[in-house]
Amino acid sequence: MEEAYITLPKGFKANGVSAGMKCSDPANINKDDPRSSYLDVSLILSDLPCNVAGVYTSNLVKGHSLTRSIDIINSGKEVRGITVNSKVANACVGKIGVKDADDIASSLAGKLGINPDEILTASTGVIGTRLPVEKMIKVHDELVNGLSSDPESAHDAEYAMMTTDTVPKEVAASITLNGGQEVNIAAIAKGSGMIHPNLATMISVFTTDVKADNKVLDKALRAAVAHTFNRVSVDGDTSVCDSVIIMANGASEAVIEDSSEDYKIFEEALTGLSEDLARMIASDGEGATKFVEITVSGAKDADDAKLVVTSVARSPLVKTMIFGEDCNCGRVITAAGYSGASFDPDKIDIRLNSLLTYENGIAVDFDEDLAKKLLAGHDIKIEIILHEGDAFDRMYTCDFSYDYVKINGSYRS
Amino acid sequence: MEEAYITLPKGFKANGVSAGMKCSDPANINKDDPRSSYLDVSLILSDLPCNVAGVYTSNLVKGHSLTRSIDIINSGKEVRGITVNSKVANACVGKIGVKDADDIASSLAGKLGINPDEILTASTGVIGTRLPVEKMIKVHDELVNGLSSDPESAHDAEYAMMTTDTVPKEVAASITLNGGQEVNIAAIAKGSGMIHPNLATMISVFTTDVKADNKVLDKALRAAVAHTFNRVSVDGDTSVCDSVIIMANGASEAVIEDSSEDYKIFEEALTGLSEDLARMIASDGEGATKFVEITVSGAKDADDAKLVVTSVARSPLVKTMIFGEDCNCGRVITAAGYSGASFDPDKIDIRLNSLLTYENGIAVDFDEDLAKKLLAGHDIKIEIILHEGDAFDRMYTCDFSYDYVKINGSYRS
Repeated sequence: MEEAYITLPKGFKANGVSAGMKCSDPANINKDDPRSSYLDVSLILSDLPCNVAGVYTSNLVKGHSLTRSIDIINSGKEVRGITVNSKVANACVGKIGVKDADDIASSLAGKLGINPDEILTASTGVIGTRLPVEKMIKVHDELVNGLSSDPESAHDAEYAMMTTDTVPKEVAASITLNGGQEVNIAAIAKGSGMIHPNLATMISVFTTDVKADNKVLDKALRAAVAHTFNRVSVDGDTSVCDSVIIMANGASEAVIEDSSEDYKIFEEALTGLSEDLARMIASDGEGATKFVEITVSGAKDADDAKLVVTSVARSPLVKTMIFGEDCNCGRVITAAGYSGASFDPDKIDIRLNSLLTYENGIAVDFDEDLAKKLLAGHDIKIEIILHEGDAFDRMYTCDFSYDYVKINGSYRS
Repeated sequence: MEEAYITLPKGFKANGVSAGMKCSDPANINKDDPRSSYLDVSLILSDLPCNVAGVYTSNLVKGHSLTRSIDIINSGKEVRGITVNSKVANACVGKIGVKDADDIASSLAGKLGINPDEILTASTGVIGTRLPVEKMIKVHDELVNGLSSDPESAHDAEYAMMTTDTVPKEVAASITLNGGQEVNIAAIAKGSGMIHPNLATMISVFTTDVKADNKVLDKALRAAVAHTFNRVSVDGDTSVCDSVIIMANGASEAVIEDSSEDYKIFEEALTGLSEDLARMIASDGEGATKFVEITVSGAKDADDAKLVVTSVARSPLVKTMIFGEDCNCGRVITAAGYSGASFDPDKIDIRLNSLLTYENGIAVDFDEDLAKKLLAGHDIKIEIILHEGDAFDRMYTCDFSYDYVKINGSYRS
């Protein structure tokens, strides 16, 4: 795979700097550390105005940086970029939280000579704490002056978004449209706890150099997110800051019209990248030692398929069983049974990495040594077959480890 | 408090023995160990026939010992007792599982000179494994011969039900009816993982010497369970074997008629005992280091109150925060926000052991030292006030610790 970075589409620049939120004094930063340990403010900017679409958390409580961005996107105005910070979520601090986000956007807009409404804002981190606006504005010169389309600056934008993520999550694709034009899409994302549909403590930004109106972008983004980002569960918690945003600047001059052949190509590419990021997020769930894919087939309808797959993916008993590498699929059938879906428990089959462990609702006397070997791997697939109909669903999750408890027992400190 | 044991009501005997399911060879048992480490088969027997009622798991998948008992209770026949085993749940093994439970009841009935249908069966433990029927029947002579109403035999019946429970759970009450008669109710229960409404991997048996028909018993039991056992969540998993059963033998000759003053006294006592057991189960949740009580008040209606309290009690992020003694109530407001309840997030207040941490949806600048001190205690109370209406609900849970992961990463071995 080619190197992926957010500025691969034409006409985008990016940068990430430290405002000292991750490290108390930016002057003392050890540059030998992984850059994610000290970078905390990023900016992704397009040379041209962008059409834009977003998909956001379903949580009633929404962060202030996010509500500000939602208002801008809903207004239908073109935007030029987005600034993201980690460490502080800018949520639940009252009306002052919207003003803080406004002040940050205004400061950047002033330095860029554009309108504040052209800069979207996103924040992730601790809830209930105000953004250190002054500290953040102090590094805006450095942030803007360092903007570049080179891969290192683009990676810095991703590093600055990361919280408990252990690896950066960057993807990109170059696709050829029917007319032969080559266009680009790139995306970055951060996980990694408080993750459950719909979306999570997750922020993802897509850039593309196609030209597409907001309605088309919105349609393609919703389609791409539905069975990818919205099928990742780390711990069943849905955070207040989750968002996936796509900015299209038209620099390639290729136009994506609704319902065209090119639209299909574009939506497919967007879905593929979303799927890659969704898998990366689940793999890098807080404390995760395994990547777990759960599928349900043969459900009566789509609702039942989703109920079962969500229930199994959310079960702490299933997740600790995977961590312990113990092929105890009684926990899977139990989670299916209390999911609320309607099915005959005497017809259910369960496979773990292809090994049949339950058949017609009855535990199979499988080879324990083989099961141990299968579970020792990193990638675990649990297949649940209900034999009630044709509906299918899938979810990505991870195991529950000591480290999940450790990370979340002391997140603030 | 007086010593509580299941044979306190008149006319009940009990016993618990080892069939070697917890220890591979009962001959090698170290009698200095806690009795819960080797006792695994119990019997509670009434001298007189009992009326009976039960409340069972809502899981679609139900254990075979349990479905057998449900059939007997639904038939309206009187019963004489119940045998409970730990270590093997007798679930998901096919039709043979019902026959196994039948065989066990038949063996006991033969030794007691009664009908097999007069013995209820209950099992808790690993799913998908057959009961070692032969091994269990071998100890039935010892089980029956040791039946006694003395407290030690009664405690043994409780020890034999325990799986990952660390403490026995026994309660009893003597109540005086309006006519001056003193009657007794006693109950035992086991937890402690896979616990979530409705019921859990939980088994509880009540005995009483009142006379009450099945309909009255059923009504009183459902009322008692609704806001007690059905408000305990350890990990959000609802197991396939959960049941609460009450047997009333009428030995006291006091009769409880529906809608009488005595009924009220009886239901209140039953609710009180259920509440005590529910608190004990939450406190002894797998790996728990804290007991957590969550209340929601001011909800629009009862459904919303339940949605919020369930969502917060189930959140791994809230539970690890309590384990880490970190007063990070942003996680509480987040879990309330995605609960599906409808409320204005700008009106919500949150208190943690009385300390106001959120007011009108905004984080309060509280005294961190005081918060640390409050969270260092064993009993944690989270109060959520929505200011939308008058509905209230409450749930009992525990924190999520390293030990939860440890216990459940290797439960079968």
